[in-house]
Amino acid sequence: MPDASLLEVFPTPAESPLVIEHVAEEFTSLCPKTGHPDFGTIHIRFQPRPPSAGGVCVELKSLKLYLQGFRNEGIFYEAVTDRIRTDLACAMRPAWLVVETHWRGRGGIRSVVRATHGAAPG
Amino acid sequence: MPDASLLEVFPTPAESPLVIEHVAEEFTSLCPKTGHPDFGTIHIRFQPRPPSAGGVCVELKSLKLYLQGFRNEGIFYEAVTDRIRTDLACAMRPAWLVVETHWRGRGGIRSVVRATHGAAPG
Amino acid sequence: MPDASLLEVFPTPAESPLVIEHVAEEFTSLCPKTGHPDFGTIHIRFQPRPPSAGGVCVELKSLKLYLQGFRNEGIFYEAVTDRIRTDLACAMRPAWLVVETHWRGRGGIRSVVRATHGAAPG
Amino acid sequence: MPDASLLEVFPTPAESPLVIEHVAEEFTSLCPKTGHPDFGTIHIRFQPRPPSAGGVCVELKSLKLYLQGFRNEGIFYEAVTDRIRTDLACAMRPAWLVVETHWRGRGGIRSVVRATHGAAPG
Amino acid sequence: MPDASLLEVFPTPAESPLVIEHVAEEFTSLCPKTGHPDFGTIHIRFQPRPPSAGGVCVELKSLKLYLQGFRNEGIFYEAVTDRIRTDLACAMRPAWLVVETHWRGRGGIRSVVRATHGAAPG
Amino acid sequence: MPDASLLEVFPTPAESPLVIEHVAEEFTSLCPKTGHPDFGTIHIRFQPRPPSAGGVCVELKSLKLYLQGFRNEGIFYEAVTDRIRTDLACAMRPAWLVVETHWRGRGGIRSVVRATHGAAPG
Amino acid sequence: MPDASLLEVFPTPAESPLVIEHVAEEFTSLCPKTGHPDFGTIHIRFQPRPPSAGGVCVELKSLKLYLQGFRNEGIFYEAVTDRIRTDLACAMRPAWLVVETHWRGRGGIRSVVRATHGAAPG
Amino acid sequence: MPDASLLEVFPTPAESPLVIEHVAEEFTSLCPKTGHPDFGTIHIRFQPRPPSAGGVCVELKSLKLYLQGFRNEGIFYEAVTDRIRTDLACAMRPAWLVVETHWRGRGGIRSVVRATHGAAPG
Amino acid sequence: MPDASLLEVFPTPAESPLVIEHVAEEFTSLCPKTGHPDFGTIHIRFQPRPPSAGGVCVELKSLKLYLQGFRNEGIFYEAVTDRIRTDLACAMRPAWLVVETHWRGRGGIRSVVRATHGAAPG
Amino acid sequence: MPDASLLEVFPTPAESPLVIEHVAEEFTSLCPKTGHPDFGTIHIRFQPRPPSAGGVCVELKSLKLYLQGFRNEGIFYEAVTDRIRTDLACAMRPAWLVVETHWRGRGGIRSVVRATHGAAPG
Repeated sequence: MPDASLLEVFPTPAESPLVIEHVAEEFTSLCPKTGHPDFGTIHIRFQPRPPSAGGVCVELKSLKLYLQGFRNEGIFYEAVTDRIRTDLACAMRPAWLVVETHWRGRGGIRSVVRATHGAAPG
Repeated sequence: MPDASLLEVFPTPAESPLVIEHVAEEFTSLCPKTGHPDFGTIHIRFQPRPPSAGGVCVELKSLKLYLQGFRNEGIFYEAVTDRIRTDLACAMRPAWLVVETHWRGRGGIRSVVRATHGAAPG
Repeated sequence: MPDASLLEVFPTPAESPLVIEHVAEEFTSLCPKTGHPDFGTIHIRFQPRPPSAGGVCVELKSLKLYLQGFRNEGIFYEAVTDRIRTDLACAMRPAWLVVETHWRGRGGIRSVVRATHGAAPG
Repeated sequence: MPDASLLEVFPTPAESPLVIEHVAEEFTSLCPKTGHPDFGTIHIRFQPRPPSAGGVCVELKSLKLYLQGFRNEGIFYEAVTDRIRTDLACAMRPAWLVVETHWRGRGGIRSVVRATHGAAPG
Repeated sequence: MPDASLLEVFPTPAESPLVIEHVAEEFTSLCPKTGHPDFGTIHIRFQPRPPSAGGVCVELKSLKLYLQGFRNEGIFYEAVTDRIRTDLACAMRPAWLVVETHWRGRGGIRSVVRATHGAAPG
Repeated sequence: MPDASLLEVFPTPAESPLVIEHVAEEFTSLCPKTGHPDFGTIHIRFQPRPPSAGGVCVELKSLKLYLQGFRNEGIFYEAVTDRIRTDLACAMRPAWLVVETHWRGRGGIRSVVRATHGAAPG
Repeated sequence: MPDASLLEVFPTPAESPLVIEHVAEEFTSLCPKTGHPDFGTIHIRFQPRPPSAGGVCVELKSLKLYLQGFRNEGIFYEAVTDRIRTDLACAMRPAWLVVETHWRGRGGIRSVVRATHGAAPG
Repeated sequence: MPDASLLEVFPTPAESPLVIEHVAEEFTSLCPKTGHPDFGTIHIRFQPRPPSAGGVCVELKSLKLYLQGFRNEGIFYEAVTDRIRTDLACAMRPAWLVVETHWRGRGGIRSVVRATHGAAPG
Repeated sequence: MPDASLLEVFPTPAESPLVIEHVAEEFTSLCPKTGHPDFGTIHIRFQPRPPSAGGVCVELKSLKLYLQGFRNEGIFYEAVTDRIRTDLACAMRPAWLVVETHWRGRGGIRSVVRATHGAAPG
Repeated sequence: MPDASLLEVFPTPAESPLVIEHVAEEFTSLCPKTGHPDFGTIHIRFQPRPPSAGGVCVELKSLKLYLQGFRNEGIFYEAVTDRIRTDLACAMRPAWLVVETHWRGRGGIRSVVRATHGAAPG
């Protein structure tokens, strides 16, 4: 089960604005209906709050371990996306956050699901 | 004949905003004039209403079966696009919906038709 | 000589908004100075008026025949673009229309000419 | 049912050696197990015998109509490939012939099947 | 544990020579040292013996299920490649077989492992 | 020395708005410090004033000869860009003009310089 | 009508072996059946005989003018290819020559025709 | 240690607005945790103030030497980005500045960090 | 200094023939003349001897650490390539080995150096 | 005038076989007929003789300066290719040498000229 407590953070290293994007190209989970594996790419983009406001950033290795927790979960595309948004929003309380999941798809249909938290730019 | 009653839905899995895109790369119908097959790619992008407002999302396998219903229909590019928009808007009543059909074309001309429902972004 | 009377139209098939793009990748005309052939791609994008306002769309095969009429015309890039804009605007009276011609170029310089009619989006 | 009698031929237009390749990028048939559509690209490459030996080439439009005959056939990848090889070898009796079918695939596996007739080069 | 008994076969559908390639783009196993997931693409290419010699081909869906059996195995790149070669060679006894595994890699190094059975062409 | 008097113009061929882009992919000048050649691509995009306002467009062959005048000039990236902007703005007095120079670079750093004249769009 | 007498030659500039390839990306002729234009790319590759054996190479501008002669000819793919081979073989008497024509195609089928003269390499 | 005093500047060469972008594709530093090398691409985009306002631009060779100073530094992605922003903002006092670092990544996750100074456009 | 003793090996895991390729995309060393960094990609391809002949393969992580040893070495392209060939040939005594180094280059010239050991295939 | 005496060499650094390729992507000369600039890419691939046979390799910076010597020469494609072959064969006396020049072309025709010295591989 993906475990949000794996997510570690560190203080935002600058008062001036930063935008950070992590792209995990090797994501896999299971289809809850068929049990067959799903493969996708996870895009995570956020603006941390500044350190003077207690802002923090997710640590990269802990993010990797957290994402590996979905490997043997039966979970829909939309739920994966919402779950990552919720866990990261809770861990970082960022100014804004976008989670976009791109799925290789099944039966000739590929999908993208985008979830936002806060006032994410276009 | 494409059958809108094939489209199944499930409740939107999160109150926070989601945008979902499905790309069906293996679409075919028939030209109503010549009877020759047309081949294209169908892009469907929408924002479901939240579950608290009764929002629903189209189920992926049912969407696939619905799109296969066009296989032996004689129908123009514009009518395919309008029909998918109408059937999905009716099935999901989404916040907004965009249907874009990209056709491989005939005689050196390829075409794109875009239909929107509700206040779709740029 | 390109003949605008070749352009046939059909009524817009839906009241809800449509945007249509045709890309003719096999266009050729002649340079009026040197007589050498020019090769380019013609992009035509427009929003037809709705059927309730008498809106019409250009028929694809007639568009192809119309564009073939430039084959042995000596005509500059800018004049090709303006001519197609004028003829299509006259035939369809669309909400808006963009004609973009992309030329393979000569002597190491390739060119794009864009002509608009009505309030075309960015 | 695909109908080999649709295939028309014309005499090879030169005594000197020719190699001809036709690539049909819009092929579709049905999976005989599931009934779901399969999509692929068909590569046909051959060396016709010279006209002095009665050599003939397949006519392009008749090839297109012949290939459309698979549209609603339930037939496996290997059988499609073998069938096209057999029908073309029979219609043209070429010096050699290669038929290669590239399938978009199912469940994350895409396939290529290659069938040869006569002494086809590497 | 990957289970070779999952592999089903069917008789080669033609006496004339065929070459078949399956590419599984969604393969994953585990690194036996670190437990971290490895991701790769599996290329399987073979020439089945003709039906008159008892030749058979691997069935596509059974191949997919067999490959999914590596998902939670701790196994090195070379051993994955050798295992698939051995199991397929045993199941099909093909004229020749090539298994090539392409790995996304770790720490800036990506790898390819190629194993052959019988007289595979260059 | 690049000679602005080489630039020839012709009247804008239509009252309706046009946007014109010329891309010269074979530009070379010399680094004024080292004497080594620099290679780049020059993008020129502008909206000519309409003919009723005395609007003119640069003639393509004269533009080519003008750009060849930089071949043996020792001149910095920023000065090339500014010089082309100034000479074209003077020759055409366009509604707006953008000159963008893309340089292949030196020592692992490639550069782009963008100069605008008038109210160029984003 | 394409006029082989337009082809000019110059003596091969070196005794040591040369191989020369010209690729004309802007070729057009007419379909003799429908009168519709065909568009293609012409690849011409040859080894001229050495100057001591009276070897010559085709001059580039004359080749361009010769190829433009097909613009309004109704002629099949195979005949275009054979004609260029014959005319160039006659004009240059090269050690070997390959003419390959790549056609954008019609109705979803694109074609390549390859004609050789002399002992052309693989 | 990266040494900001290496950065040399020259006066902005034109009063009219310029935007300048430098892309350093060969950047490397060290991970402060593991000591392993990180590889990335540094994008620097800015609008210098005009010369009448004392505006200056960074000199390209000095920028290269400055960036080489990170080669053996143990420093996080975010800190590299912030450091380059601070040093360049201090050296040039530009109208605005964007520093974007693209990292090849580790363990299947690649990252982008974007830092802005002043009113950088979207 | 690159240290060949870092290279660890493991027994070839199969008697049947294997070919293994490792591609290290993040290689850097120093130019011995100028001290400036060089960046390249290292391709290593080999056939290990079978285990019955004492065959071994290089371990991936040890290869990575060995290649990092070049980071601050002043060494020419050809010497890097020869050194890696020699060290790997000594460590593995493979049936054959190819080392190919691809360099991003300097001053508009990029280079490839290929060194072989034993009877490497074309 | 290109000056072969600019070419400097250094002893081949290894007895074991090496193959070296240099690709100069920024080459320019002048058309001797029109005076217009030609742009191309020069590929130089060779196997130096071993040091025990007095083998040498061309030094990279001297090669760059030599190639810059063509910048203002009026010279045909074939003569550029032959000249570089002759000068490098003379300077290095390599086991074999291939010079391939790829030209951006004129009037829609691009060219490649290949010259060999010694027993160059296919």
